[in-house]
Amino acid sequence: MLLCDIGNTSYHFYNTQTKKSYKKSVKTFDPSTINEKIYYICVHHPTCKKLQKLQNWINLEDFVQRHLYYDTMGIDRIIACEAIQNGVIVDAGSAITVDFVQNGIFQGGFIYPGKKAFEDALSRISPALTTSLDFSVNFQKLPKNTHDALSYGFLSGLKKEIESYNSDIILTGGDAKELQQVFETAMVDELLLFKGMIELLKKNSL
Amino acid sequence: MLLCDIGNTSYHFYNTQTKKSYKKSVKTFDPSTINEKIYYICVHHPTCKKLQKLQNWINLEDFVQRHLYYDTMGIDRIIACEAIQNGVIVDAGSAITVDFVQNGIFQGGFIYPGKKAFEDALSRISPALTTSLDFSVNFQKLPKNTHDALSYGFLSGLKKEIESYNSDIILTGGDAKELQQVFETAMVDELLLFKGMIELLKKNSL
Repeated sequence: MLLCDIGNTSYHFYNTQTKKSYKKSVKTFDPSTINEKIYYICVHHPTCKKLQKLQNWINLEDFVQRHLYYDTMGIDRIIACEAIQNGVIVDAGSAITVDFVQNGIFQGGFIYPGKKAFEDALSRISPALTTSLDFSVNFQKLPKNTHDALSYGFLSGLKKEIESYNSDIILTGGDAKELQQVFETAMVDELLLFKGMIELLKKNSL
Repeated sequence: MLLCDIGNTSYHFYNTQTKKSYKKSVKTFDPSTINEKIYYICVHHPTCKKLQKLQNWINLEDFVQRHLYYDTMGIDRIIACEAIQNGVIVDAGSAITVDFVQNGIFQGGFIYPGKKAFEDALSRISPALTTSLDFSVNFQKLPKNTHDALSYGFLSGLKKEIESYNSDIILTGGDAKELQQVFETAMVDELLLFKGMIELLKKNSL
């Protein structure tokens, strides 16, 4: 079976038989070149529109019990929650979304700027705050230099917040591996969204 | 005695006899119109240069024991620390600086984007994340809507971080009063920098 997660830059495919994943550019890939049935989620609106016209592309958003989440919640966050029964999902991309699931039920979550957005925000306040934020900053003592003071500010509260849920932590998204330096017991799962899609297919006997 | 704290937009004066404070614009105020002795700190470089030439303007930065802090630490943060013996100072302006003092000794601190910088960072990630961040967000339960998810992301980790020091919290800067909704037991002290300046004068028998 073929699954696809479409973001703002790429189609991310996953073949459940071969367990292989690969990417194609949103700009150049033509989805009508695929003839087999394919289940997808999509957050890139121009592509979503294109896919609606293709009968073999099946939008998994239609099978979600949306009342368990909230109206404006991104389908990618919802599908990630569908992947687990218990835990906190930290999806670290341009934004960092944090969602808490207990006994298969979404408990709520929050949104935080990603590394690059945070760096940009700091350098816009003052050139003196321009830095490359460092996931390996020491959380055991309060910083006494500007570079560490900025990295600590970015990460220490986030760490305390997420660890306060006393739950398994699952990291996904582009900065997942970097974030593992902050959350030492966390698991990195780059295929979390595909697991969520498979769970949703099972729930709906598809 | 006259004290003055010069930021990027204004001269903030404090008269220790009358206990009154008032502001003048950095752009239009001429410091040579003051003839009496005045102790100041300054972070606005063009103004700092101007003041060096005026004999009655005495830069308090020259009296600080800088080895107790760190090289690139702003003089405003240092002077705030001089004001207290124990506590955590949260100075909420364009950036939020957090500095921890124990037994009169600076223990370290960190830097976080201020409200406006945080809002700008979010809206640059996606127009869907454009919001006015809300200091009165509920920290007792995880959000289930985008507006609260953003305000919670801005403040909840910061709150946990600062409260983890188990120390008195002193709020100062433009957003101090707003922040009091987050730190309910905190004190707001808009004259904290002047208190620090007075302490430094005492230490140096000036």
